[in-house]
Amino acid sequence: MSDLDALARRLEQFADARDLAQFHNPKNLALALAGEVGELLAEFQWLTPDQAASVMTEDVEAAARIWAELGDVTNYLVRLADVLGVDLIQAANAKIDANDKRYPADRYRGSARKAPGDH
Amino acid sequence: MSDLDALARRLEQFADARDLAQFHNPKNLALALAGEVGELLAEFQWLTPDQAASVMTEDVEAAARIWAELGDVTNYLVRLADVLGVDLIQAANAKIDANDKRYPADRYRGSARKAPGDH
Amino acid sequence: MSDLDALARRLEQFADARDLAQFHNPKNLALALAGEVGELLAEFQWLTPDQAASVMTEDVEAAARIWAELGDVTNYLVRLADVLGVDLIQAANAKIDANDKRYPADRYRGSARKAPGDH
Amino acid sequence: MSDLDALARRLEQFADARDLAQFHNPKNLALALAGEVGELLAEFQWLTPDQAASVMTEDVEAAARIWAELGDVTNYLVRLADVLGVDLIQAANAKIDANDKRYPADRYRGSARKAPGDH
Repeated sequence: MSDLDALARRLEQFADARDLAQFHNPKNLALALAGEVGELLAEFQWLTPDQAASVMTEDVEAAARIWAELGDVTNYLVRLADVLGVDLIQAANAKIDANDKRYPADRYRGSARKAPGDH
Repeated sequence: MSDLDALARRLEQFADARDLAQFHNPKNLALALAGEVGELLAEFQWLTPDQAASVMTEDVEAAARIWAELGDVTNYLVRLADVLGVDLIQAANAKIDANDKRYPADRYRGSARKAPGDH
Repeated sequence: MSDLDALARRLEQFADARDLAQFHNPKNLALALAGEVGELLAEFQWLTPDQAASVMTEDVEAAARIWAELGDVTNYLVRLADVLGVDLIQAANAKIDANDKRYPADRYRGSARKAPGDH
Repeated sequence: MSDLDALARRLEQFADARDLAQFHNPKNLALALAGEVGELLAEFQWLTPDQAASVMTEDVEAAARIWAELGDVTNYLVRLADVLGVDLIQAANAKIDANDKRYPADRYRGSARKAPGDH
């Protein structure tokens, strides 16, 4: 079993043991995911790019909070995907395949601009 | 190598081939993650809980968009964690361990309320 | 002076008195806005539609938190718009004008679906 | 009638003319607000702080998109507050009053750090 599958099973057991299936509708889980991402954002909001790049080694308290927020985000994402029946690794690789074609390396070197018509 | 590690390496190669390291600051990646989660939310905003629960089988176009958005969210989350040096599986499991203690199954059965003092 | 202009001036004075202009870059303010919206979302994540509709009268503690989060969201939105030089009332009305044409009342009655080509 | 009240009435008429009240539950509107904020974030994700600060004058296409996104965000925020019965100006001013006491100007000069115990 992959790491993500093992995590999905653990999250399912956590929910089942507390009878939370009634709350774990995909809409609610997407909301919960967004709420956790909001908390993650709050850790970066006043940092300069340089401060952000070194936060994990330079600010031990912020690092611990970011680590915990990433755990929360991962858990809600994995739980949401499990409830929807989506394989995150497949979906992620399919998106890279598509972006590889959409943004050829030789034409988008050093550019973060979107492909034409994309917004 | 785990699935997530393989994905992180593929995302790094994608970024390196396009010289995107300059953009892939953790702050920017957290913003990009939040933007993709916003697009995911938009798929659920007008659905009833029942419609949300059956969207992957009942609405093939929405299902394809949700699948693609979950791929985007996964990619930015994995890339962000890689740039920060965070192991998402470890962080996620540590959070479940903490929640197991904070929300004992026998006291929080059928309840989505927060532990005292938590908001 | 309109209510929003008065609020924008008060927020500017708050920032100036604390020498926060260095932090109030539009990018940082957009991040802070998103973080506050994340906290607002968290208030609704486990509620049924009916519970959400009556939360302000049925749950006095949640109502106080929602009220405060709406205050935070408004402040960051007004501050962001002020820093960018955008008149929110103009921008909002222009968007309603556009949506009035895009979604004619007689064709979109009882439908929350998007106009063709819109996603 | 204030500008915001006039906007709230216009949004109500828009919704009534299309029979959208069934969709305009506070939970759905909070989700829609978050989705629009996600689109706003996407405009800033790859910009440096300097680029973000000058985007409204230096990039006319991005400026038009940001202006439109701010209109969308304002509309969903005003509609959400109207459905909840919250006066945004009151809520915003109450929050500034509270922050004035929590972050005294003489102690928080040039600092974006949080008050003790606040996260």
